[in-house]
Amino acid sequence: MNKIPSFEDIKSTYKLIKPFVNKTPVLTSQTINNLTRANIFFKCENFQKIGAFKYRGATNAILSLDKKILQKGVATHSSGNHAAALALAAKINKIPSFIVMPNNAPKIKIDAVKGYDADIIFCKPTLQAREETLQKVVDKTKAVFIHPYDNINVIKGQGTACLEFLNEFSDLDTIIAPVGGGGLISGTSISAKGFNKNISVFAAEPANADDAKRSFYSGKLIPSENPNTIADGLLTSLSDLTFSIITKNVDAIFTCSEESIKFAMRFIWERMKIIIEPSSAVGLAIIFENPEVFKNKNIGIILSGGNVDLDNLPFL
Amino acid sequence: MNKIPSFEDIKSTYKLIKPFVNKTPVLTSQTINNLTRANIFFKCENFQKIGAFKYRGATNAILSLDKKILQKGVATHSSGNHAAALALAAKINKIPSFIVMPNNAPKIKIDAVKGYDADIIFCKPTLQAREETLQKVVDKTKAVFIHPYDNINVIKGQGTACLEFLNEFSDLDTIIAPVGGGGLISGTSISAKGFNKNISVFAAEPANADDAKRSFYSGKLIPSENPNTIADGLLTSLSDLTFSIITKNVDAIFTCSEESIKFAMRFIWERMKIIIEPSSAVGLAIIFENPEVFKNKNIGIILSGGNVDLDNLPFL
Repeated sequence: MNKIPSFEDIKSTYKLIKPFVNKTPVLTSQTINNLTRANIFFKCENFQKIGAFKYRGATNAILSLDKKILQKGVATHSSGNHAAALALAAKINKIPSFIVMPNNAPKIKIDAVKGYDADIIFCKPTLQAREETLQKVVDKTKAVFIHPYDNINVIKGQGTACLEFLNEFSDLDTIIAPVGGGGLISGTSISAKGFNKNISVFAAEPANADDAKRSFYSGKLIPSENPNTIADGLLTSLSDLTFSIITKNVDAIFTCSEESIKFAMRFIWERMKIIIEPSSAVGLAIIFENPEVFKNKNIGIILSGGNVDLDNLPFL
Repeated sequence: MNKIPSFEDIKSTYKLIKPFVNKTPVLTSQTINNLTRANIFFKCENFQKIGAFKYRGATNAILSLDKKILQKGVATHSSGNHAAALALAAKINKIPSFIVMPNNAPKIKIDAVKGYDADIIFCKPTLQAREETLQKVVDKTKAVFIHPYDNINVIKGQGTACLEFLNEFSDLDTIIAPVGGGGLISGTSISAKGFNKNISVFAAEPANADDAKRSFYSGKLIPSENPNTIADGLLTSLSDLTFSIITKNVDAIFTCSEESIKFAMRFIWERMKIIIEPSSAVGLAIIFENPEVFKNKNIGIILSGGNVDLDNLPFL
């Protein structure tokens, strides 16, 4: 049963995975605060293991399953960070992993997955090809499929980033996280509303991949059609599970242009001296596009990851 | 009199400048530790104000001088980070600043100095042109010349980075800092040896700008001739003052190739998700080139700065 996780579930999850994940730092920038006239705290999941928050969910998925069930290994399809996360978590838990990746995935992400000893199976870059290829792999290997976001244990794991954030910065009044398939924003929203129901939870999404916004405001799940954004971690569509959590907990979804994503990404690189991937930049991009909404707020932004291909930077 | 500063001097300096400078974070990387078989701690002065340790020295230089002397402002020549540092410290202390910059300085550094309201005077990219232009500026404005490194107060300020580092990580057995003009390594060596005389202090220098190494091992000051390195912060030559401090306190100077600098820089970007400039990469580069020297050591590396021109990355 896909019962929506509770705040208590995420607190228990944090206890379970804490020894295996990085407690990521929180950084601020006086320049960005001056420019936005807001007080922004950045939770740096780009410093998480494998360079993205996805390691939290993958770790919890593996630690939560019975060891006997896991002996044949785990499998998934992913454009990148979930793949690396599951591969490393599997390697650390001494079980095999089978990763279906689209053949246009960034080289740095393919290399990372290879480095964690996963078996990689390439497929065409469509959801249908991914799912069919994965089914074949699972049928053959009997590995357990760990979905990148349509999975309760994954969502609980992703929610620990926000919990850790609020444990350290308890007076945030606004939390922003990017939304792709919805795993991070689902876990984030449960943690934020559980911690303090008055915290505003906003999802940030590329306008060029705005299925979450359209679903949220129409009240029915509308899958993404031909999304085309440099935020390569946000191309996926919501699932019934993440849609139901978002509908319940998220206060608003803002979209932003590709230009804003590039601008915010470069701004964070230049001013904060940290490397974030385009998907991480949408949080600041929606603030740049909607300054009046965020002025004078105490805002926490989750920077979701830092895996970019340095040979192919989107702002150059 | 250019009396060499003591460890007590640096401790006093830290008390003075602490309210004005960032306490920079210390990061580690499991991947880098596995690769080098050492235990390396990175002091992230790329997260310092203006993106480099230079802000410590510039702040101390201004806070240490009499307000009346300072009313005409401060002046300097610098290829970049000291310029930005002095300009911001002057702005915060509400005095004018006059900055002589070579006309080939990176655009990002020129823009930063402009952003801090300094008067910029461009000159040819030679030491002679810099010094002559500066003299004219000082004659005209009566501003106080704050040398980028041949200045006791600047050296004391730079030494606070290592003091702060050791206050937090007291069991380091090795400290590495880059050497250009020698301000950072001078202050670093005083702090390290004052904190614990058994700490090994090593300077890291590009082989293509190896005046410090040649001076150190010949026992006489040999200025740089046509240095040519991507580490644009390390093109300058030692002064009598920094040479005397280095001779007294530094245990060895290691050089590294341009290829090693690029490799180490890219490695830190990709694995640690932080932006460092080429001058910051020499510390890790000398470890990559001399693995047996550093194996099993508890090493502190000072990452000196993070100001790079993203439109002109050296490893692309």
